[in-house]
Amino acid sequence: MEESKRSPEEVVKVMLERDRFTRWMGLEVEECRAGYCKLHYQVKDEMLNGFDIVHGGVLFSASDSALAFVCNVDGNITLALDASINFIRPAKPGERLTVEAVEVHRGRTIGVYEIRTTRENGELVALFRGTAYRTAKVLS
Amino acid sequence: MEESKRSPEEVVKVMLERDRFTRWMGLEVEECRAGYCKLHYQVKDEMLNGFDIVHGGVLFSASDSALAFVCNVDGNITLALDASINFIRPAKPGERLTVEAVEVHRGRTIGVYEIRTTRENGELVALFRGTAYRTAKVLS
Amino acid sequence: MEESKRSPEEVVKVMLERDRFTRWMGLEVEECRAGYCKLHYQVKDEMLNGFDIVHGGVLFSASDSALAFVCNVDGNITLALDASINFIRPAKPGERLTVEAVEVHRGRTIGVYEIRTTRENGELVALFRGTAYRTAKVLS
Amino acid sequence: MEESKRSPEEVVKVMLERDRFTRWMGLEVEECRAGYCKLHYQVKDEMLNGFDIVHGGVLFSASDSALAFVCNVDGNITLALDASINFIRPAKPGERLTVEAVEVHRGRTIGVYEIRTTRENGELVALFRGTAYRTAKVLS
Repeated sequence: MEESKRSPEEVVKVMLERDRFTRWMGLEVEECRAGYCKLHYQVKDEMLNGFDIVHGGVLFSASDSALAFVCNVDGNITLALDASINFIRPAKPGERLTVEAVEVHRGRTIGVYEIRTTRENGELVALFRGTAYRTAKVLS
Repeated sequence: MEESKRSPEEVVKVMLERDRFTRWMGLEVEECRAGYCKLHYQVKDEMLNGFDIVHGGVLFSASDSALAFVCNVDGNITLALDASINFIRPAKPGERLTVEAVEVHRGRTIGVYEIRTTRENGELVALFRGTAYRTAKVLS
Repeated sequence: MEESKRSPEEVVKVMLERDRFTRWMGLEVEECRAGYCKLHYQVKDEMLNGFDIVHGGVLFSASDSALAFVCNVDGNITLALDASINFIRPAKPGERLTVEAVEVHRGRTIGVYEIRTTRENGELVALFRGTAYRTAKVLS
Repeated sequence: MEESKRSPEEVVKVMLERDRFTRWMGLEVEECRAGYCKLHYQVKDEMLNGFDIVHGGVLFSASDSALAFVCNVDGNITLALDASINFIRPAKPGERLTVEAVEVHRGRTIGVYEIRTTRENGELVALFRGTAYRTAKVLS
């Protein structure tokens, strides 16, 4: 008997429940479907580095979570192999950031994703690209 | 009058005090001097993703903090421009990870850094490389 | 007296004359202006690897040349600090490839560029991102 | 009957014969075994960019070829998924460069490789990291 896959809505719900670091960041998923994911979060004080701007690791982490959403949404467990990020502009405490993930390519096992973090006025804060490996395992 | 620079020990102390996200991660700096930095942290539950392994963003963040330490230790404010990471092995809850940052190159304004995250048995968990820009500003 | 800058057309002409590797690749610049550059080349036999597809290094090189065009077009000498590339699909001998470079961000000294290589049918072959450093020197 | 694999020496010989771009670059393989590869090349005039230094694409290409050697040497066809490079120092016409590739990690299908390009005096010219995917196909 074939393992039944979860719906995109269920996958997002399950992932948010289980992913404690994504919960810590307070990521709110606005939209998540095959090939596209959009989420938001607010820069809180615990996310700041020593220069009172958001820590680069937080910008990376939120992008990496968006990658996880977009590439797991079809129910197959998919893992990031590597990723790179360019830090473009600082983000300040209290700012509400938007993270958009787009699937640039999807092969049989390898997918490539671009994730942009922007401010409310649309200015680019960070640009992330990741390569992910799709396993045969289904999210249970 | 020339601005006086802080000692490496002072820089680390000041950065740890001010960098709230580094404090949240619980990074303990074992050694930090020009060109080299070594730190440790324990994988806590809030750092896990939905697969019960450490979130890739946390591995990136600790590496990025190590980069910040090693490139700010001489007292000039230095910012990461971009960085990339390869995820090699998962890290489990409770594991104590070691992060070592090495300055590969230091030009007049641009520095290149490699940061390795390893398990207690020495196995590689993640490999990070970052490019940083050294400003003329001194850490006050 | 201020050094006079060359026009975009002159910069492209001078760069094509001087850049022997770009000439070897046979890159034809279709368009080049502030923030955007588009060029083409044909995959020739000397560009192939052992699997009879274009060598990844050639895909990188043409992207890197496009980056050089777009970031030098205003006449200030600009150097790539680092770059990354994802190889999406193979390109075959005889194919005519299009390379489009877009300036994602331009700060005072640092610029970020995305370069896409596509086949004639529009399929993505490679995705490149580079960080460049703008010097104060003017192209003479 | 199982397909018989070629010896490392045969793989290198076959790859050099078939890879026309590697031949164009004039890469000489000094050593190539599981997990490690060392090669050399001389910067020739056709490799120069408009600033009379070696084109970044050539530095990338030689590194990418070294990656191909080290990850194909056991006879399974392996393809680079993505790679990144930091340009550290320029290389001049006539310089003899050394390229060393090290396998940082090798999983069942994914390998991670670091490749350093150095001058004769040992100074670092470029730092490359690549992720490769190992297919089940044997080099015929």
